Parts: sequence; C-alpha cells; structure tokens
Amino acid sequence: MKPKTSVYIATSVDGFIARPDGGLDWLEHDSGNDDYGFHGFIASVDSMILGRATYEQVLGSGVEWPYTGKHVIVPSTTLSAGDVPEELRGEVEIASGEPSELLAILERQGFKHAYVDGGVTIQRFLRAGMIDELTITYIPVLIGDGIPLFGALDGDIKVRHLSTNSFDSGIVQSLYQVAR
Amino acid sequence: MKPKTSVYIATSVDGFIARPDGGLDWLEHDSGNDDYGFHGFIASVDSMILGRATYEQVLGSGVEWPYTGKHVIVPSTTLSAGDVPEELRGEVEIASGEPSELLAILERQGFKHAYVDGGVTIQRFLRAGMIDELTITYIPVLIGDGIPLFGALDGDIKVRHLSTNSFDSGIVQSLYQVAR
Repeated sequence: MKPKTSVYIATSVDGFIARPDGGLDWLEHDSGNDDYGFHGFIASVDSMILGRATYEQVLGSGVEWPYTGKHVIVPSTTLSAGDVPEELRGEVEIASGEPSELLAILERQGFKHAYVDGGVTIQRFLRAGMIDELTITYIPVLIGDGIPLFGALDGDIKVRHLSTNSFDSGIVQSLYQVAR
Repeated sequence: MKPKTSVYIATSVDGFIARPDGGLDWLEHDSGNDDYGFHGFIASVDSMILGRATYEQVLGSGVEWPYTGKHVIVPSTTLSAGDVPEELRGEVEIASGEPSELLAILERQGFKHAYVDGGVTIQRFLRAGMIDELTITYIPVLIGDGIPLFGALDGDIKVRHLSTNSFDSGIVQSLYQVAR
C-alpha cells in the first residue's frame, strides 16, 4: 500500500506560504508555547517528499537538518545523489518521476506516512490526487503577494473537513481529508 | 463618522469566490437549514457597496432584488442613474470615486454599517484600508481557478481573529477584524 500523504503548512489568510522571494518573516508570530500540533504531526510521519527549492532553502539556511530520522525524497531532475551533503546521504534521496512513482519508492522501502512539503511539490501532489490530508494553519495577516499554497487543478477536488481549532494567538488551523 | 464596513463572503478553500466565468455552482452545498449567520449579518447592515459586475449579475439573474431596504451604492464610471431599473431608483445609487469617497456619501446620508460585496470592490476597499470586518466562509472544495477573493496590497495588513465556527456540512467560517 502506498504511504499516506499529509501536508502541514502555514499560510497567510490570503493564501500565500511565502513572500515572492521565499521570505517567511510574516510567519514570526507570537505563538506562546504552542507549536500548533507540529511536534505530534512530525512524530507521526516516517518519510517526506521535500520539494527541491525548500530542500535547498533549508540546506542554505545554516540551521541544523530538521528532519533527522525521516527518510526524505527530494524530487529533482537536475540534482543527483552526489549533490547531497555527505552527512545526509543515508537519509536524503534524489529522485525524479510522477508523484505516484515517488510514493512507490517509499512504499518499496516500507514507509507508511509521508509529509509532503514545498510549494511546487504540494501543488503537483494535489493535482495528481496524491494527497490524503491537509492541515492548513492560517496566520492572521494578508501579505498581498507571494508563493501561493494552491495552484491549477484538472478539476474540482472535494475535501472533507475533519476539525478546526483556533488559538489565542489568532491562528486558525483546519484539517481536511482529501478525496484521492 | 464613516460607516462600519463588513465583507461577508464564501470562498473555496483555495481562495476563489467564483469560477473564471463567475459561476457559483461549486457553492451549492448541502447546508441543511443553516444560513451560516447571513440573515443576522444582513439585518445588521443598512447599506451596501455592491461591485458593478456583481450588481449586473444579480440584475441579470432574474431573481427578485435581494437587498430591498438597504441603500446600495454601485461604484461605476460607466453606468449612470438612468441605467438603474426604475423600481430600484430609490435604493440604488451609481457613484464613482475612491473607497473613502463612497463611504463619505453613505456617511452624509446617515448610514452606519455597509456590506461591501463583489470581487473587485472587496479588493479595492481592502487595499485602501477601508474594511473593518471580514467574515470568510470556507466551502470544502478546491476549484483550481477563478476569481480570487484577495488581491495585491500596498503592504501587509494584519487582521485580528475574532471567532471561528465549523459546521456539520464541512463549512468553516472565520470572522476577522481588519486594522484600518
């Protein structure tokens, strides 16, 4: 069975996941001690499909690799295994192919639940009908322009609302199940 | 004092208020007997700024004029008073000008709370900092393309989350206060 796929993403109320240059400053929001369920979410996945641009942004940010212990596939036709920093070679795999092919790679390795992240990658997987759950965290700001969470589709996709929570910080988080 | 301004609008989860051709078929959602607070909302306004395209769509739809008892301003530089159907001339006013000028017209007539509707008009009023409250009703579907709720801004606009409710139908409704 193909692994379950989940998106867990923060968006401005006007639907952007980053500024045009990838900037996330608008995300820095007083959240107190709440992580909005991210810890529990990340503990529930054993693998990731991490978009190439987001992967390179994380690598270039200088922060410690945040996904230790997860098997990460970076979809790319231009990177190769040799481009992966040595210390990540056991965990990060470069692969190309359609969403279903990338999930088949994870399936063959026995993975059960993949976190799908990165703007282009989320849109590709949604369009291919390869997302099971969407957790959308709405940051209470309009930023007017940027990288959109959603993109073109081949047809309507109905989603099933599972739950919504709001927080004192003004953040609203909705969990939707996507009809595959 | 300028009237309070409120937006009350339904959007797909991917941020569209209509299909590219204005179609609203995706909105027809089993809502049981719930009107998601619309009755209470409409009872709270005494006036409207109703975008020209939406106004013409309502007129052309053949349904009975739904805003009887509200003073309606239709922002337009091309329509004139003579274009308004005779039976609506007491209630519908054509006016041009910046959002603040349109609100000044309502203020001079003593109106206290205006419902701002129509895609272009909502975006213009938001950009001009002339919206006080946003009620966003999220329909659980992704439609991929259409007329977006939000548009370009001159800078970030912080919003304050006031409340969110979810319904058995899968609809989620959030109320935000906009910093003018």
